[in-house]
Amino acid sequence: MARPVIALLTDFGTRDHYTGSMKAVALSICPEVILVDISHEIDPHDIFDGAIQLASAYHYFPASTIFLVVIDPGVGSKRSGLAATVGGYRFVAPDNGVLSGVFAKKEPSEVVEITERRYARPTVSKTFEGRDKFAPAAAWLAKGIKISALGRPTSNFLKLDLPSTIVSSDGIKGQVMRVDRYGNAVTNINRTDFERLSGQGDIQLTVGSHQVKRVVGTYAEIGQGEVCALFGSTDHLELAANSSSAAEFLEVKRGSEISVLRTK
Amino acid sequence: MARPVIALLTDFGTRDHYTGSMKAVALSICPEVILVDISHEIDPHDIFDGAIQLASAYHYFPASTIFLVVIDPGVGSKRSGLAATVGGYRFVAPDNGVLSGVFAKKEPSEVVEITERRYARPTVSKTFEGRDKFAPAAAWLAKGIKISALGRPTSNFLKLDLPSTIVSSDGIKGQVMRVDRYGNAVTNINRTDFERLSGQGDIQLTVGSHQVKRVVGTYAEIGQGEVCALFGSTDHLELAANSSSAAEFLEVKRGSEISVLRTK
Amino acid sequence: MARPVIALLTDFGTRDHYTGSMKAVALSICPEVILVDISHEIDPHDIFDGAIQLASAYHYFPASTIFLVVIDPGVGSKRSGLAATVGGYRFVAPDNGVLSGVFAKKEPSEVVEITERRYARPTVSKTFEGRDKFAPAAAWLAKGIKISALGRPTSNFLKLDLPSTIVSSDGIKGQVMRVDRYGNAVTNINRTDFERLSGQGDIQLTVGSHQVKRVVGTYAEIGQGEVCALFGSTDHLELAANSSSAAEFLEVKRGSEISVLRTK
Repeated sequence: MARPVIALLTDFGTRDHYTGSMKAVALSICPEVILVDISHEIDPHDIFDGAIQLASAYHYFPASTIFLVVIDPGVGSKRSGLAATVGGYRFVAPDNGVLSGVFAKKEPSEVVEITERRYARPTVSKTFEGRDKFAPAAAWLAKGIKISALGRPTSNFLKLDLPSTIVSSDGIKGQVMRVDRYGNAVTNINRTDFERLSGQGDIQLTVGSHQVKRVVGTYAEIGQGEVCALFGSTDHLELAANSSSAAEFLEVKRGSEISVLRTK
Repeated sequence: MARPVIALLTDFGTRDHYTGSMKAVALSICPEVILVDISHEIDPHDIFDGAIQLASAYHYFPASTIFLVVIDPGVGSKRSGLAATVGGYRFVAPDNGVLSGVFAKKEPSEVVEITERRYARPTVSKTFEGRDKFAPAAAWLAKGIKISALGRPTSNFLKLDLPSTIVSSDGIKGQVMRVDRYGNAVTNINRTDFERLSGQGDIQLTVGSHQVKRVVGTYAEIGQGEVCALFGSTDHLELAANSSSAAEFLEVKRGSEISVLRTK
Repeated sequence: MARPVIALLTDFGTRDHYTGSMKAVALSICPEVILVDISHEIDPHDIFDGAIQLASAYHYFPASTIFLVVIDPGVGSKRSGLAATVGGYRFVAPDNGVLSGVFAKKEPSEVVEITERRYARPTVSKTFEGRDKFAPAAAWLAKGIKISALGRPTSNFLKLDLPSTIVSSDGIKGQVMRVDRYGNAVTNINRTDFERLSGQGDIQLTVGSHQVKRVVGTYAEIGQGEVCALFGSTDHLELAANSSSAAEFLEVKRGSEISVLRTK
């Protein structure tokens, strides 16, 4: 039988021992677990980016992977903790919207508020529930308990209003969702919408005060000093430059608008 | 039987291949080992911070975890290598004080100077004993040898003088031990001492030229622009701000003094 | 039987989910694989540094480790993907020279161009072949297929011209290959060549406009404010300072020349 997998996504960074402590707790409860990092470099408290990144990555993991997601500015407050099932996957996270990107793709079949004390550490720090409550919950799931053992079903949980595109017969208005390490600006415009529009005639692609002239297939087709659009690894429109940051060149960041308009 | 765990703490960073090479050596000796990172982002040569972080994290790991701690400005010199047992845990590190935080919590029951050549790589680089001597020693422990097989018992090892608090009936003088990713300034004042004092009447909390007005339970209670004190994940007093760096606001760093005084 | 190991080297950084997605795919195909990071902090598109770092680390890994190397500015273009055997090790990487450092140490006994669609994901993103093509190929190797199952043999692959030293009876001309986290400048001058020369009389070691006066055995022998040469962990000449960056002090970077000349 395959060993259970816990995938971690946090804003803890890698300087402090916080991630290590959380993994330590998980391994203490479930020694056979495989721990995989998605990222610990989400900007502090950036629930939005956590939600987007989780939604971009989770479906590549083995069925039944458990996601331990701790971006938690409200740690210790009355906000509750959630465990949820989506497809074959399970998620453990604070109830602050960080699972919204996943839920937007597919409705959860089960969501519980984590209340069961026996699956937490004996003392729960009010500043580190990741270690004392969420990691234990994830590890117990890895060990075989059911989601329903962690607490009571709830339908009253926070959902972020993730920006959606406005699609009309004349064009698409979208925005930049994130800028990655390479300076690529990933938008929320998907390939289907874009190709339906561009298949009907010429289009004009505008980002801030810049016109993006070409849509290419690969980064390698982009000329020196040029910024192009292409479809990135999640099949969304992305702005990219040749060995430099398109986001810097275009002066865009998360939330910057992008429009695709029919010109004839 | 549970697979052995080696937890790694170094100042190697993550750009260079050094940590990977050390893990490679450990896996070559003990293929069934589980490798867990605590941090590799300790500032170069910062033995003090390594000691503090190790002491904050080790006891969350599974019993019998082996800690491979390599912050080693004296690599290749005559400083020796240590292997030690504390509680059920084992530690492998240069003899430079990096285990002091752990030893301050609990006396080691066994400390040996690593001298046994057969548990090192055939050639030991004078600039990378982490790879050629300490990783092999940790991996052989994971494989089942006893600490005593690594060398001769010693009681002559370096201990850092970790700053302790001065507690009187009038107050507590402590200091900042580290600043974490979020800008929280973690001090060495523990909850027991603090509550004994604050339970007797009003107190005044001073950090540098700033008064900290409120002690709260969670980060979420801190107002915009405010700095509060609270008890962090290791149950020590910590200075925190709302979504910003308390350390920057207060202009404090490691070593900065903090005082808690009775006002009546 | 030992579990298979995949060691990863990329320029993906640790902020984005890209490495996590690649690991997810590998684990989905081969759940028993052990994943080990060499580095994900290679500078974006820096094939040269990837080649050097891989060559410095791979031989410490267990025999039969599979290296998944994705530094891939040409992703999605016509450049092909390679799988290769060197010694007992296997390598999966884009055909852009990133394996040159390994091949320079030892000729590959087998190189194939990865063409077999059944060992890739059903859809291969033109911007993320690491996830959709290379990770699956590595995972299938971990699962037991032969290199030859991945595609057709090729001898027509790209090799970087890695800088070699010029050795004469009067001296050695080399260059800085990389600067590590500590600011040590690692050169391509090996110990054998250096000692043959220095064994014959006095030498003068020049880097840019600086003379380096002393060759020492360990970092600990270097005085405050001094820069010395020593042999680093790969047994190449390295310039180092005392708790500071030798590279900054000497104003050198990759490619900077270093000469060792006989003075009598």
